[in-house]
Amino acid sequence: MTTVREADAIDAPSADPESRLHDDHHDALRLWLRLLTCTLLIERRIRAQLRDSFAMTLPRFDLMAQLERAPAGLKMSELSRRLMVTGGNVTGLTDQLVGEGLVVRKRVPGDRRAQAISLTPAGRRAFAAMAEAHERWIIALMDGLSQSERDRLYGLLGRLKRGVAAMPTQEHA
Amino acid sequence: MTTVREADAIDAPSADPESRLHDDHHDALRLWLRLLTCTLLIERRIRAQLRDSFAMTLPRFDLMAQLERAPAGLKMSELSRRLMVTGGNVTGLTDQLVGEGLVVRKRVPGDRRAQAISLTPAGRRAFAAMAEAHERWIIALMDGLSQSERDRLYGLLGRLKRGVAAMPTQEHA
Repeated sequence: MTTVREADAIDAPSADPESRLHDDHHDALRLWLRLLTCTLLIERRIRAQLRDSFAMTLPRFDLMAQLERAPAGLKMSELSRRLMVTGGNVTGLTDQLVGEGLVVRKRVPGDRRAQAISLTPAGRRAFAAMAEAHERWIIALMDGLSQSERDRLYGLLGRLKRGVAAMPTQEHA
Repeated sequence: MTTVREADAIDAPSADPESRLHDDHHDALRLWLRLLTCTLLIERRIRAQLRDSFAMTLPRFDLMAQLERAPAGLKMSELSRRLMVTGGNVTGLTDQLVGEGLVVRKRVPGDRRAQAISLTPAGRRAFAAMAEAHERWIIALMDGLSQSERDRLYGLLGRLKRGVAAMPTQEHA
């Protein structure tokens, strides 16, 4: 999944979404672009580290993380829903992981057409090792904040999340 | 660019990356997954609104936003770098926007092989209308936070951003 272009993007210097701001932009827009920048910077680090340490892509790691939480397996539709991200091809990712013996497709009892996807024992072991490293990387990346700053940031993001979720989706311009 | 699968993901209910947490996970990991969830929730709203109001995809909007800041145009390599995101095909996106008359490719004087991409006058007008709506949507999405909460969140994310940027990239597990 890693292309030359993707590798270039990972190692690119610090241009970021905040660079597109004008002086007269509303503070809410500044806040959004900073939030997006933080997410992209952390994701870029994690992506590079998964690649270098485990030859793993982030979409495949995210897929395995969802399966790890569902020992009974997930239907393809539910897996797509949980992954939230757009642009990834869940079927293609699953095919690759099946090919490597990390994931398996099984029939769903009582539903002739549906299949459930779950981790194999090898997939579970591989994911455990990656998840431990992933948590360590995240702890290091958040280390610029004190415990109290992390707590406050967590609380404020919780308020933001609830505010966004409470907003009706049909409220278009 | 919008596929059926992408549309499904946009309208999916509230499962999010935070759902994969275990009780014994470090607070830094909780914080990261909440940050990621907020970004994905807001991005999903913006994606749906750009689609419904302007028949525009988010990657194309982001590309036009970068060009709007560079009236003299950007080389393809610089445009890829500024977009930061992986997985998008900058050449493909540019081809579409050229086809719609919103973006133009020009020779770079003194560099026979390079081309600079810039907005056409029509592209500039179209972007101005979208950017105004985009800012309005973001203001509405952030409305669950008070001005003082937004200020604090902005400050904390600034500290996080500096902390991540200061971390050496070669620090792998």
